Amino acid sequence: MTHPNTPTLDDLAAALDALRAQTPLVQSLTNIVSANFLTNVLLAAGASNAHIDNVHEAGGFARLAGGVLINLGTPDDGTAAAFTAAAEAAHDAGIPWVLDPVGVGGLPWRTGLAADLLKYRPTAIRGNASEIIALAGRGGDTRGVDSADEAAAAIPSALALLTHADAVSASGPVDYLVGRDGNGGVAGLRIAGGSAMLPRVTSTGCSLGGLVAAYLAVAPTPLIGLAAAHTHVAVASEIAEENSSGPGSFAVAYLDALFTVDTDTLRSRARIEAFHPVEKDEN
Amino acid sequence: MTHPNTPTLDDLAAALDALRAQTPLVQSLTNIVSANFLTNVLLAAGASNAHIDNVHEAGGFARLAGGVLINLGTPDDGTAAAFTAAAEAAHDAGIPWVLDPVGVGGLPWRTGLAADLLKYRPTAIRGNASEIIALAGRGGDTRGVDSADEAAAAIPSALALLTHADAVSASGPVDYLVGRDGNGGVAGLRIAGGSAMLPRVTSTGCSLGGLVAAYLAVAPTPLIGLAAAHTHVAVASEIAEENSSGPGSFAVAYLDALFTVDTDTLRSRARIEAFHPVEKDEN
Amino acid sequence: MTHPNTPTLDDLAAALDALRAQTPLVQSLTNIVSANFLTNVLLAAGASNAHIDNVHEAGGFARLAGGVLINLGTPDDGTAAAFTAAAEAAHDAGIPWVLDPVGVGGLPWRTGLAADLLKYRPTAIRGNASEIIALAGRGGDTRGVDSADEAAAAIPSALALLTHADAVSASGPVDYLVGRDGNGGVAGLRIAGGSAMLPRVTSTGCSLGGLVAAYLAVAPTPLIGLAAAHTHVAVASEIAEENSSGPGSFAVAYLDALFTVDTDTLRSRARIEAFHPVEKDEN
Repeated sequence: MTHPNTPTLDDLAAALDALRAQTPLVQSLTNIVSANFLTNVLLAAGASNAHIDNVHEAGGFARLAGGVLINLGTPDDGTAAAFTAAAEAAHDAGIPWVLDPVGVGGLPWRTGLAADLLKYRPTAIRGNASEIIALAGRGGDTRGVDSADEAAAAIPSALALLTHADAVSASGPVDYLVGRDGNGGVAGLRIAGGSAMLPRVTSTGCSLGGLVAAYLAVAPTPLIGLAAAHTHVAVASEIAEENSSGPGSFAVAYLDALFTVDTDTLRSRARIEAFHPVEKDEN
Repeated sequence: MTHPNTPTLDDLAAALDALRAQTPLVQSLTNIVSANFLTNVLLAAGASNAHIDNVHEAGGFARLAGGVLINLGTPDDGTAAAFTAAAEAAHDAGIPWVLDPVGVGGLPWRTGLAADLLKYRPTAIRGNASEIIALAGRGGDTRGVDSADEAAAAIPSALALLTHADAVSASGPVDYLVGRDGNGGVAGLRIAGGSAMLPRVTSTGCSLGGLVAAYLAVAPTPLIGLAAAHTHVAVASEIAEENSSGPGSFAVAYLDALFTVDTDTLRSRARIEAFHPVEKDEN
Repeated sequence: MTHPNTPTLDDLAAALDALRAQTPLVQSLTNIVSANFLTNVLLAAGASNAHIDNVHEAGGFARLAGGVLINLGTPDDGTAAAFTAAAEAAHDAGIPWVLDPVGVGGLPWRTGLAADLLKYRPTAIRGNASEIIALAGRGGDTRGVDSADEAAAAIPSALALLTHADAVSASGPVDYLVGRDGNGGVAGLRIAGGSAMLPRVTSTGCSLGGLVAAYLAVAPTPLIGLAAAHTHVAVASEIAEENSSGPGSFAVAYLDALFTVDTDTLRSRARIEAFHPVEKDEN
């Protein structure tokens, strides 16, 4: 039986409408590789973005943002301090925030940063399977930004991380999402689709993290917000692949598709399927 | 009566010719979101760019640049020191420089930085209406990088900033520009056109600031340089919108159009109109 | 007589096959202007990339990378320390690494950084002619990132740098490459083609440096790796120019072409020619 809190197509379509109607403001603290593309993804999808990652302003701005993204792609001592300030402020003010643990596992310094940030209870965690596994302390070698594990292998780790976050996703050819509800139950969602071109364009994963922060600002539950972002990306990338002939034209078509996707397209193309993560993990 | 120093189409066409003939070298100190796109905008339009934002080199390089852009988008302690060094050096050496006060108003630390930088008398200031209002100390909440105010509402603030700068512009659906002449008079210019897609692509405003620095290097007056950059962008974005189907393809077409626009196109498409800012402000 | 170690078309085609088969992981320490485009170039061409430029992780990661790129485009005190850590670690662990001396010559602080990094013996050095001349201590004013000298004028300097590196290239309308063999001999290669659009798109040179690091990870000799990267870029940019109408669409078509170029296309379009650098220099 599908968990009653599992997002439905109606939930995802309503979230898309809410995103377009409310244009939530994301505060991104992301890496220098993805900063431009992530902002363009947010603007194309229907949100807005301000990249505020200095320690003097990160905390104060987080209290006013619709959602906050903290991405560990290219940290240094200065931005690491800003991460902490933003996470603490978001947590204290009840602002939803997303942790994207880029490179956690293979890189020890940021692995420690990520563990510290969990104290501030991210609303959602989004990463590749190997990063989710490493963040949960279950081993896994991330080999930088690649994802060596199939996303399904990360389900037990994603469930374990639900002690620190309300919803967790592991990206891969198929994405796996899990979320807690208020009664101790857990809902799971599998999202297929997407495009084989996504790994050929940098920052598609990082910008998905930003889009999660935007959807968390408008969605009724963290898992719906997380699922809405994953689905928006999966549908847009599928359309983009049909309109491109390589990674350069794919990235352009992807931004166009994020902008043009409407709820009818979302409903007809989304490939979501509930699964029962707890039972699977425990049996 | 139009102020005798108000830029004309002839002035703007001559500035475009000068840009292409001289390929001025801009030194940009800009944010990590816009650094790549801004450089591509400058190269496409006909200038060149070097992003020198460390404190060891920023001042020395500013003395050799054609124009300098200081953009407050993602400052940290290191780049803030470089901003001061570059502004001071440009001021001392008579190199035109542009202040783009991104996020000033809502973000207190950078608001202080911007106030300090005014001491070095920017040749031009370019911002969204809310940023111009905030920089002039007239209130206004910038809500990050969005522009909540219509640009026209910023005219009194832009005029007030002419005590610190030679020319000031407020960007919006219609841009408003003001500039001082040598006799205490003030000229105003309204520039329409552009594209509703501009706010859907990040760094279009920041890169306009870079283009202002390039035009200041070749234009006979600051107001002509400022107006030439705004017009080049307005015309190119209008063409780009005709050749695109979303923000991704718009950004690509925009770079192409910045490159291909010639003086004939500029003359036929530019929508400039003089206005009388002082009278309007005082009456 | 062609030096027996001069790369042939067979060598370059084999290197392209090896790149695609092995997907080498590059560690980039590059500037904030090029970080995104460089990563997209590597992903499109067939490699992968992780931008690890903090001092806490740069050295440790370099020991595990396939190749390392150190690009001096936008250094600060933090990344400069990471450059040293990465170069030292790569040198100690026998990992090939590339030095891209952006802006060396005109900018004194980074000129000192580059001189220090030569101690760790880069496998390859890639720069514009003026940068290669300056790095060899033979004068030359780099005027930022532009290349004021024809690349051929840099040949004596490139040869002089072979005391510090195994292979050196100077980029220009025609690229000149030199490399040492194990017997004290020197091979030279001239690579024509490319596109006049390359200087109109930022980071095409910087991303070539990243691609050199990728090819060094899979090629049998440094000069073959260096030549394979230059040739891949020259052929892809030639194709891109045929499919574009300005710098925006050129950049998109360039990424597509880097992805689609195969060994047949490489063989039919590559314009390589051996030259005898030592004899030319000494006579």
